Amino acid sequence: MTALDHHAAAPARLPLSVTELDLINAWWRAANYLSVGQIYLLDNPLLREPLTLDHVKPRLLGHWGTTPGLNLIYAHLNRVVTARDLNAIYVTGPGHGGPGLVANAYLDGTYSEVYPHIGQDTDGLRRLFRQFSFPGGIPSHVAPETPGSINEGGELGYALMHAYGAAFDNPDLLVACVIGDGEAETGPMAASWHSNKFLDPIADGAVLPILHLNGYKIANPTILARIPREELNSLLEGYGHRPYYVEGDDPESVHQQFAAVLDDVVTEIARIQNDARTGDVTDRPRWPMIVLRTPKGWTGPREVDGLQTEGTWRSHQVPLSGIRENPEHLRQLEQWLRSYRPDELFDEQGRLRPELAALAPAGVRRMSANPVANRGLLLESLHLPDFRNYAVPVDQPGTVLSEATRVLGEFLRDIIRDNPHNFRLMGPDETASNRLGAVFEGTDRVWQGQILPTDEHLGRSGRVMEVLSEHLCQGWLEGYLLTGRHGMFSCYEAFIHIIDSMVNQHAKWLKVTGEIPWRRPIASLNYLLTSHVWRQDHNGFSHQDPGFIDHLVNKKAGVIRIYLPPDANTLLSVADHCLQSRDYINLIVAGKQPALSYLSMDDAVLHCTRGLGIWEWAGNETEAHAGGALAESASGLPDVVMACAGDVPTLETLAAVDLLRQHLPQLKVRVVNVVDLMRLQPDTEHPHGLSDAQFDAIFTPSQPVVFAFHGYPTLIHRLTYRRRNHSNIHVRGFKEEGTTTTPFDVVMLNDLDRFHLVMDVIDQVPALGAGAAPLRQRMSDERLRARAYTRAHGEDDPAISGWTWPHGGA
Amino acid sequence: MTALDHHAAAPARLPLSVTELDLINAWWRAANYLSVGQIYLLDNPLLREPLTLDHVKPRLLGHWGTTPGLNLIYAHLNRVVTARDLNAIYVTGPGHGGPGLVANAYLDGTYSEVYPHIGQDTDGLRRLFRQFSFPGGIPSHVAPETPGSINEGGELGYALMHAYGAAFDNPDLLVACVIGDGEAETGPMAASWHSNKFLDPIADGAVLPILHLNGYKIANPTILARIPREELNSLLEGYGHRPYYVEGDDPESVHQQFAAVLDDVVTEIARIQNDARTGDVTDRPRWPMIVLRTPKGWTGPREVDGLQTEGTWRSHQVPLSGIRENPEHLRQLEQWLRSYRPDELFDEQGRLRPELAALAPAGVRRMSANPVANRGLLLESLHLPDFRNYAVPVDQPGTVLSEATRVLGEFLRDIIRDNPHNFRLMGPDETASNRLGAVFEGTDRVWQGQILPTDEHLGRSGRVMEVLSEHLCQGWLEGYLLTGRHGMFSCYEAFIHIIDSMVNQHAKWLKVTGEIPWRRPIASLNYLLTSHVWRQDHNGFSHQDPGFIDHLVNKKAGVIRIYLPPDANTLLSVADHCLQSRDYINLIVAGKQPALSYLSMDDAVLHCTRGLGIWEWAGNETEAHAGGALAESASGLPDVVMACAGDVPTLETLAAVDLLRQHLPQLKVRVVNVVDLMRLQPDTEHPHGLSDAQFDAIFTPSQPVVFAFHGYPTLIHRLTYRRRNHSNIHVRGFKEEGTTTTPFDVVMLNDLDRFHLVMDVIDQVPALGAGAAPLRQRMSDERLRARAYTRAHGEDDPAISGWTWPHGGA
Repeated sequence: MTALDHHAAAPARLPLSVTELDLINAWWRAANYLSVGQIYLLDNPLLREPLTLDHVKPRLLGHWGTTPGLNLIYAHLNRVVTARDLNAIYVTGPGHGGPGLVANAYLDGTYSEVYPHIGQDTDGLRRLFRQFSFPGGIPSHVAPETPGSINEGGELGYALMHAYGAAFDNPDLLVACVIGDGEAETGPMAASWHSNKFLDPIADGAVLPILHLNGYKIANPTILARIPREELNSLLEGYGHRPYYVEGDDPESVHQQFAAVLDDVVTEIARIQNDARTGDVTDRPRWPMIVLRTPKGWTGPREVDGLQTEGTWRSHQVPLSGIRENPEHLRQLEQWLRSYRPDELFDEQGRLRPELAALAPAGVRRMSANPVANRGLLLESLHLPDFRNYAVPVDQPGTVLSEATRVLGEFLRDIIRDNPHNFRLMGPDETASNRLGAVFEGTDRVWQGQILPTDEHLGRSGRVMEVLSEHLCQGWLEGYLLTGRHGMFSCYEAFIHIIDSMVNQHAKWLKVTGEIPWRRPIASLNYLLTSHVWRQDHNGFSHQDPGFIDHLVNKKAGVIRIYLPPDANTLLSVADHCLQSRDYINLIVAGKQPALSYLSMDDAVLHCTRGLGIWEWAGNETEAHAGGALAESASGLPDVVMACAGDVPTLETLAAVDLLRQHLPQLKVRVVNVVDLMRLQPDTEHPHGLSDAQFDAIFTPSQPVVFAFHGYPTLIHRLTYRRRNHSNIHVRGFKEEGTTTTPFDVVMLNDLDRFHLVMDVIDQVPALGAGAAPLRQRMSDERLRARAYTRAHGEDDPAISGWTWPHGGA
Repeated sequence: MTALDHHAAAPARLPLSVTELDLINAWWRAANYLSVGQIYLLDNPLLREPLTLDHVKPRLLGHWGTTPGLNLIYAHLNRVVTARDLNAIYVTGPGHGGPGLVANAYLDGTYSEVYPHIGQDTDGLRRLFRQFSFPGGIPSHVAPETPGSINEGGELGYALMHAYGAAFDNPDLLVACVIGDGEAETGPMAASWHSNKFLDPIADGAVLPILHLNGYKIANPTILARIPREELNSLLEGYGHRPYYVEGDDPESVHQQFAAVLDDVVTEIARIQNDARTGDVTDRPRWPMIVLRTPKGWTGPREVDGLQTEGTWRSHQVPLSGIRENPEHLRQLEQWLRSYRPDELFDEQGRLRPELAALAPAGVRRMSANPVANRGLLLESLHLPDFRNYAVPVDQPGTVLSEATRVLGEFLRDIIRDNPHNFRLMGPDETASNRLGAVFEGTDRVWQGQILPTDEHLGRSGRVMEVLSEHLCQGWLEGYLLTGRHGMFSCYEAFIHIIDSMVNQHAKWLKVTGEIPWRRPIASLNYLLTSHVWRQDHNGFSHQDPGFIDHLVNKKAGVIRIYLPPDANTLLSVADHCLQSRDYINLIVAGKQPALSYLSMDDAVLHCTRGLGIWEWAGNETEAHAGGALAESASGLPDVVMACAGDVPTLETLAAVDLLRQHLPQLKVRVVNVVDLMRLQPDTEHPHGLSDAQFDAIFTPSQPVVFAFHGYPTLIHRLTYRRRNHSNIHVRGFKEEGTTTTPFDVVMLNDLDRFHLVMDVIDQVPALGAGAAPLRQRMSDERLRARAYTRAHGEDDPAISGWTWPHGGA
């Protein structure tokens, strides 16, 4: 297509002997044969009889185009893994080429070990073929079901970040990562290339990117295949790599080129690591990478119905379709399958011939059997200091200010100290902004770029990873967790939506792996969302969005946990719990601004363990003078339940309760705080859900509930719509009103403020009657006064912002 | 930091005379002064008296670090715009530098035209300063309130894609686009660089990327500022650009360099366009770009409290804080403000001196007043052919198969024919896969890369834009719409979540612009989600996610519309409606697979106009033999309402109704189909909402509703939880169960299949009594039988997949 330039390795060297070449080509043929077989065949797996329609699947589902390339790379990696006893895994970006990965795992024996019913014989081959993309069988993409995989191939763009995540803190690991030229167009992949600025050649392993230019996506050419070689080379060098090129459509030549290049790059990687580890070189290395340009659907049908197919987008999925209607296609399919000469590859019993089987590395050196990719096998629990040691003293609730995330930062600092090799903290340049700065007392931000004397807390190694890409933070952390380590991702709440689609895929992965016995649990993916919607008053509307909670709630209940700790001590307790958990996605939303603490550590632990509870010290149900004044009180139930979830809603609720207790002392108020949002759901919907009886005991079966919620109000309705009392639940939350203003103005814009909550109570408790009207008017006036104050002074009235709880505890 | 290489323009040329240099520097000082004033000052705007604490805002909110760079670029662009009578707009990626853009719009007069209360005098300056980041004032970022802006500066990474969107089909436009080195780390920005492979130098305008390397993010250095110059240069050349460098911290030198470089690049752009437009050159041009390396917070405080501030991350936001507590900071602030010598810039009345005002381009040539950036000013309605002409004939409902999106493709083909310059169809390589292929009868996919003889429908110009990046599709389309044009984005349903966060920002933009009188309506952002959750049986679980609907429902009701047309004719009607609408985000979910048509075009129009309705032909309420058999029927109400939304749920519902009519003829069934999902909400919540009386008339106040929904079931509960009959609404939808299997197996996995719906009816209508138990058992058996069939045959039982509606119409 374009002339080879000086980087192209014309096969000047012939590293493979004739025998080696024949063998490696035979492995490749076998993998290709098994791939085509999986897409097409129900039966007659070794073509021992002429192919008939009965042998062909009725629905042909799968992706052939990328597969021969994936198979070629696998075969060659096997060679170097064996020759050099490498510890390697294989991450495939174009993982819709699922049949290829299954084929290789079958050829090296792992597949039959993991799935004993798929044996190494003709019957096993029949089952292997039949199950692929078949009802009751396996998915068409590389998936959790595929041994050796840590990257679902469905949604493109995340392979390279997963590869880096796997390599961090695995100094002996080589992660070969195939990047499709289609997925190379995605934003997340485009950002991933710079991951090499965060890889420490001493303490981390190596990532070998292999850009596979087969030229086409579903129906279009790819950008990187259609720019001049020189431009591509500039791009890859600009990413910080030294590219090696392998190009062609003649198998023999490509085998020799690829073998030579792979020898070179593996040697170069070893040299880089040795230089760094012996202290000879401290500059960021220029890591090698490979560009492999081969035809899409290589070795498949050259032409179908008179149209070129091999080497074009037409071979993306199933190049020969309509087999049933078209005898010529059936003939072509048989010819294609027989072109791999299966009789030379498998013996009479359908077993891979021993000289080919011998090409596979042994035991856990097989990339499909490497425990790194079977994740939980290597998982060690974190050494967690006692979170109680970091407690904020709380003698009287609601009187002491603390910054919750700053307190958490001290806990994280010591977790990092005690777990120097298997915990990382990710964030898009917000660790300090999110007030987790204490971590820098014990570690640095990892940074392989230039370091200047004025820089602070940058180092060649470190536990904190900061890059202005939520995608990279997420992808690195996923790769790190999937290979058996721990971590946390701290992010501005609004911008975590950037990775909505990535978390979808991770949630699906967790859901499916939970159903696969040989997949072991991994550490949970922990989000700390701070700089949240209610305290983005300074950045304005673009930074105000609490919808990630809603996004997660749609995922399978078994993998989702959502926590809204109201203060510093509850945050500590929740964080400790999340860091010990497995196979969940834990979402913690917590503030970073100075805010009141309500619970002593003992109370916080109890409250978090329950997940939600009545704050008796805040309500007045038990007070002698309460009750009796209103008709409802006769029942022994409170007149109103003031519920809250989230730190700012808790503050406004308590301030509202204070007003109610001052001005309507006859009103019997119950205060309920929710930490674990999933408690609101029925126990039939979520493992954390309350039974209806428990729910009624807390929220009452009949009384008005004024619920101040951190997020969009409808979520509370969604979680509670089956509860008996649901029609009495009146929710305030974010209703998409915001701008740059003061904190209290933001809550007022959304009617979540203390004054409005009091108005809501008056509206929801009709028994208060006309006597409450003056108070309602006064609250309305207070809102106007508060707004006028901010507009005159540019800050909130200190009487509001400085409010503390005046009623004591217990 | 790194040595200048051969690309660096040392100021060998001095294009600015001493007078010009003084003037342009004075504009820059004025813009910087106004920027600092906005961040800090409440009063004393021209420092006519010594600065005191009373003049300083109590809360200091804003971003200084990026601002002097943005101001410098603006000043120089003014010069070339005037000198060459350019038609230019200015897109600022680091748009949290809001004060800079406001300052320049004020200096060139636009601000006072748009906001007359901010006049060109001392009082106007006072108001300008006070309003910034102040309650009741303007946001701290570049925002809809900022004249000339089309890109909110809050969420980083979208500037360059917006710039390209603006340039498409605007052949005379120059879009200058500043890219921060922070946001350059984001995935979307990293992908955006390749947009130049999609820009036609003949029919499109030009984009001038200006990479502003000020070296720091919030608290960290940036990647691109810390790699060697040579590596950066490779990267930018690899992106297809010819980079020009301007570097320094001496204003005079930087002014001369920048003026020279800007002259060069504007000349080069004109040459490229001329070469292309005169037909001399057909190769993809190597567009110029600028790299500007200047200190962060340039001209701000060099040191604060003994720590270097100018040129470091410490000047990211407000470099001098704690003014009230620290008299030294107040002194430094005054010194900083006075360093710009405001008395030389503004006259006694506070008006910009005329020799400086004269630097601004005239009228609409001002970048802040360019109608391109005030979008709707230029909006022309689409020429829409009559969508009825594309109707699928439907004599009997549910008997004719058609592929809805293929039918829509013909409509789109003719829209493209009739609107050759202001409509584009975006998609991530899925236009053909989504069966919109008819569009290629009239246009090509635009592609500036290499074109091979085997390629199909690729051209240097075209209405279809395909790139494997949902981010780019979204960003290009946003930029295109924001500058007054029309379009549609077709996408696989699951992967539209990739742009969740982008659509958040667009929804916020639409919400805010709706409140700004001078902002004119723009065409709606239209999504066509096909290859949807129920027909991703072939791709499996990773491709199955209907949650984008939920995501949109959280946005402000005024901007969100959601449509689930059940067949081809309703899709045509909905699409026509969406393409005529303004200021909405329209989501259309529709299938591409052969599916039954139910409504003739006349009926489809009526149904879509109503948004939902009773399908009398499908139910049996009016049949003589129905009614009376069950107790409930005595009321004149149906025994059960079978509701559906979405094409596959509609099919399953009708098949279930068929079973009910066969086996339980005494059951009075009403069928309701919902096209416009927002109709379900109360009219107090959404403009499309039904009143309670209307809702009750359709869904009954009391009868069981079995609702088959396209998405997650909880959404229907969320939308209807305030309805009288809500506790009788029983919803089936996607519950996160999926894999690669057959279409009917996917609906069975989620209990949405016809058999399960019949079982649900039996469960929900207790009056059916024990007599219905055998049918329930039979349905359960049918499910097992259907599953066994697929597992045996690999496809669905033709009796199921080939089902048609046997009862006729009317």
